Amino acid sequence: MTRIELQLDLNYDIGPQGADFVFNIHAAQTRQQSVWNELLTISQPVPTLLHTDPATATRFLRLSAGPGPLALNYAATIDLHHHFADPLVLAECPVPALPSEVLPYVLPSRYCESDRMAAFAIEQFGALPRGHARARAVCDWVRAHVRYAPNTTDSSTSAADTLLDRTGVCRDFAHLMIALCRALNLPARFATGTDYGGEPPAGRLDLHAYVEVWLGDRWYLFDPAGTAIPMALIRFGTGRDAADTAFATMFGEVTAYAPTVRVTAVEDIARGVLLPWRCWQALSTDGGEPMA
Amino acid sequence: MTRIELQLDLNYDIGPQGADFVFNIHAAQTRQQSVWNELLTISQPVPTLLHTDPATATRFLRLSAGPGPLALNYAATIDLHHHFADPLVLAECPVPALPSEVLPYVLPSRYCESDRMAAFAIEQFGALPRGHARARAVCDWVRAHVRYAPNTTDSSTSAADTLLDRTGVCRDFAHLMIALCRALNLPARFATGTDYGGEPPAGRLDLHAYVEVWLGDRWYLFDPAGTAIPMALIRFGTGRDAADTAFATMFGEVTAYAPTVRVTAVEDIARGVLLPWRCWQALSTDGGEPMA
Amino acid sequence: MTRIELQLDLNYDIGPQGADFVFNIHAAQTRQQSVWNELLTISQPVPTLLHTDPATATRFLRLSAGPGPLALNYAATIDLHHHFADPLVLAECPVPALPSEVLPYVLPSRYCESDRMAAFAIEQFGALPRGHARARAVCDWVRAHVRYAPNTTDSSTSAADTLLDRTGVCRDFAHLMIALCRALNLPARFATGTDYGGEPPAGRLDLHAYVEVWLGDRWYLFDPAGTAIPMALIRFGTGRDAADTAFATMFGEVTAYAPTVRVTAVEDIARGVLLPWRCWQALSTDGGEPMA
Amino acid sequence: MTRIELQLDLNYDIGPQGADFVFNIHAAQTRQQSVWNELLTISQPVPTLLHTDPATATRFLRLSAGPGPLALNYAATIDLHHHFADPLVLAECPVPALPSEVLPYVLPSRYCESDRMAAFAIEQFGALPRGHARARAVCDWVRAHVRYAPNTTDSSTSAADTLLDRTGVCRDFAHLMIALCRALNLPARFATGTDYGGEPPAGRLDLHAYVEVWLGDRWYLFDPAGTAIPMALIRFGTGRDAADTAFATMFGEVTAYAPTVRVTAVEDIARGVLLPWRCWQALSTDGGEPMA
Repeated sequence: MTRIELQLDLNYDIGPQGADFVFNIHAAQTRQQSVWNELLTISQPVPTLLHTDPATATRFLRLSAGPGPLALNYAATIDLHHHFADPLVLAECPVPALPSEVLPYVLPSRYCESDRMAAFAIEQFGALPRGHARARAVCDWVRAHVRYAPNTTDSSTSAADTLLDRTGVCRDFAHLMIALCRALNLPARFATGTDYGGEPPAGRLDLHAYVEVWLGDRWYLFDPAGTAIPMALIRFGTGRDAADTAFATMFGEVTAYAPTVRVTAVEDIARGVLLPWRCWQALSTDGGEPMA
Repeated sequence: MTRIELQLDLNYDIGPQGADFVFNIHAAQTRQQSVWNELLTISQPVPTLLHTDPATATRFLRLSAGPGPLALNYAATIDLHHHFADPLVLAECPVPALPSEVLPYVLPSRYCESDRMAAFAIEQFGALPRGHARARAVCDWVRAHVRYAPNTTDSSTSAADTLLDRTGVCRDFAHLMIALCRALNLPARFATGTDYGGEPPAGRLDLHAYVEVWLGDRWYLFDPAGTAIPMALIRFGTGRDAADTAFATMFGEVTAYAPTVRVTAVEDIARGVLLPWRCWQALSTDGGEPMA
Repeated sequence: MTRIELQLDLNYDIGPQGADFVFNIHAAQTRQQSVWNELLTISQPVPTLLHTDPATATRFLRLSAGPGPLALNYAATIDLHHHFADPLVLAECPVPALPSEVLPYVLPSRYCESDRMAAFAIEQFGALPRGHARARAVCDWVRAHVRYAPNTTDSSTSAADTLLDRTGVCRDFAHLMIALCRALNLPARFATGTDYGGEPPAGRLDLHAYVEVWLGDRWYLFDPAGTAIPMALIRFGTGRDAADTAFATMFGEVTAYAPTVRVTAVEDIARGVLLPWRCWQALSTDGGEPMA
Repeated sequence: MTRIELQLDLNYDIGPQGADFVFNIHAAQTRQQSVWNELLTISQPVPTLLHTDPATATRFLRLSAGPGPLALNYAATIDLHHHFADPLVLAECPVPALPSEVLPYVLPSRYCESDRMAAFAIEQFGALPRGHARARAVCDWVRAHVRYAPNTTDSSTSAADTLLDRTGVCRDFAHLMIALCRALNLPARFATGTDYGGEPPAGRLDLHAYVEVWLGDRWYLFDPAGTAIPMALIRFGTGRDAADTAFATMFGEVTAYAPTVRVTAVEDIARGVLLPWRCWQALSTDGGEPMA
């Protein structure tokens, strides 16, 4: 088991008309991801609505804030009970056998124009053996061919742009991997949360975007940007792409400041809580069954 | 009440590897749209799976067909119990009051890049009085500024393309209206089905795409292509855009032929079944409550 | 006559492999724009080639610089002998009567996709009286509908993007005006140089991009960004769009710093040199004949 | 020497307002391409203007036609005196050494967005030995990765679209090869004319688009669509892309019919006139010097 202590600070300045927010900053509650000690503090005394999407367990926090500063602090302890699988035996699921709930994830979406990438994807990956290795090959291809470069892309950048321009941030890496997987009829979805253990200062962390691909009978984690130890990825939300799962969707005049994220991995060997490591297995934090 | 008798013939030729299909050709079963005498005939003796999306009542028919011809015939009688509303009293629903299930329909999607149309939409429609009249104005603007021209667009054409090129078919009209509504924070979704009563030979009909906009507390019908008597619109599916609600999504090598659609409106005055007419009210076929 | 004293400082840091440059920072020498007291200083002792395009009089300075800093200082005094025309009598030139040298300027180019804007341009401007007033209407429309916002666009932004996103800088304003004019068969070209007299601190100035439209028998000035007193516009280069007339095209690894531009208008009433003013006439700095 | 007899028939129906045309259907007169026995017949008795662009030798025929049918017949005999070069010794010309007239052909244009392809081009071709072999590699890559498929693209399709969608006709193959070459700082231009000797019925032919790349000190022929015997390519026009060199640019309401092209290679061994063959050398039909 992996245990992560998470702290997240968000700060905004809101214009004179006020603004409406939909946040997705709660860690998802799933069979494999238990969230406890959860504490949310909001600097304005406003009513909030916490809505959980039954299909994905994504939690949306809705509120209407008044003019002036708005600060949110979210803290939680999260236990990750990963499902481990041997990549060598993880097969692709043929389209007729895909659960109906999974089918939409082979379709194109705002930032993942898989419909325009079939020729390329089939040429590049069509001859590879089916299974986890093929999803892995797509992930590796994206990491090898896209340059990580902040401020070269913006909120309208899509996978087609990234396939052309070959530059971007974790969101763009994720969109391109997803679009290529879908072009191969591999269901893929966008996941947001936090990473941990990137190469730079250990313990450094940030809000992060990564990918889940449906293999065998559940969703498996991939990190095309390659900055995280996958075992420590915390999931906030999943959706078709960044349109579904923005950390904050804002309606109104708002100035947003860079978030502060602190992620600590807890070690408690006596109780089987180990520090996350780069394991060779495929990892899933989604049970494949309905959430508890 | 409006009663429609519907018949639909689809024909395909399937390559030597066979092909997988997801059809959306069943009329949706909702509180306001009762479907009976439903008959589906498939020329190949293959198992089928009929999946109903709980959120939208869209029914998806899945099957795997073998090589050679495949014909489907779908027939049904559909009773439409419209909800009528006075357009003058239909208000827009402010973002904070939108049901969480409706919120995704203000977000951009594959063919409706509302994120890129905010400046234009606000300039063109921002000063209009809020309410049904504003959605109507968007609908009328699209109809007035886009030229109906078959074969000028294809399956990758999006609302941004149509706003630029100003040409297309019902699908493109619908995508542009939806994108503009969302850019105004008006939830809008894509609907597919059949129309009836277009100007050409009365009774002529076709598979059709139109729009539903959330006003007050439910979804109201709009037909930006302007070819139908809205009261006779039969709904098959709804979704964010054409990616969600294709009549047929195919996986494999398939030749598709033009579908044949027959739509007949039934009159039975004694029982209150009237022929559809162009009414002045806003129409909804969606209850705003969960489906029965 | 208008007399401008111009000073321009450019600064670069060049990577270890060196870099090749094509500059377009010399004021064009034309019948209506006389350049004298021209002084160019380059901090590296490298050979240079000054090439004048015979068709447009644009001067290109080519050099290969070594690693380390590179500074260019260009100073010149420029006399502008404007051709003034009454806008009311300036007619559009029908396509068959256009000089063959002017014809390419009705065609689409990299940043001006006029081929995709015909429907919009004809709808918006097709019914207007032909002549200077129509070009003026396009210029005013662009200024009214695009928001001036630095850092929202980049070097790949085109007129189609700007028509959609409605935001940009002088380069984007110019590209959109050009594309719309060409869609109306009005020859239009991109001009670069310096402006003067913008609203902010008088005398403030910058490298600038504007537009020339062929009316009657010559090219007339338009400033869709609206930041300049047109009479003080100095022309460096003209071309189909920014691809043709970049201030600096670089081949190699280069860090570029913001240029410094100083523009002073000289008054010498005794000799007929007047300060530039916002006149009502249409202005041209291009003779319509071959350059001297 | 290669001798080609060419016959070209164009047919149009012109709307009630008449229409203006700019044709580029004359074979270019260059040092290496002599045109004689040239005969042009036009079914309407209208004045024509034949303009030769001094920079490229492209000949533009301008005319204004009245309502009704318009037929053009162009016939000519063309002698091709190819410059042959050993591909192994053909070097790329470094940017500082490029003639100023050639420099514009490293810049992006309407259909060749080379500015967006640098990362891809450098990754794919950056490590290859410089010279003819690299241009050859780009040509082969395009031929291998784009599928020839009529009616999948239209007049707004650009190289960025083709790099994504991987399908098109000779025009699209040429645009993509040009954009990739320019992204490598290899000057490349679009050429139009006729091909000969394609695989289907020998002697079959059509209007064709191909590519010229500047190597050593002149422009060399490449045929990325791979349908022609390069030695028999007749050049009508060259330009940055299809915007510059359409066979017919029309202003007005016109219905165009498919052109008829007949190309015959003449053999006259006694005088050194040989049938075209697929030779191993690089071919140029452009002297590198000013045209006679």
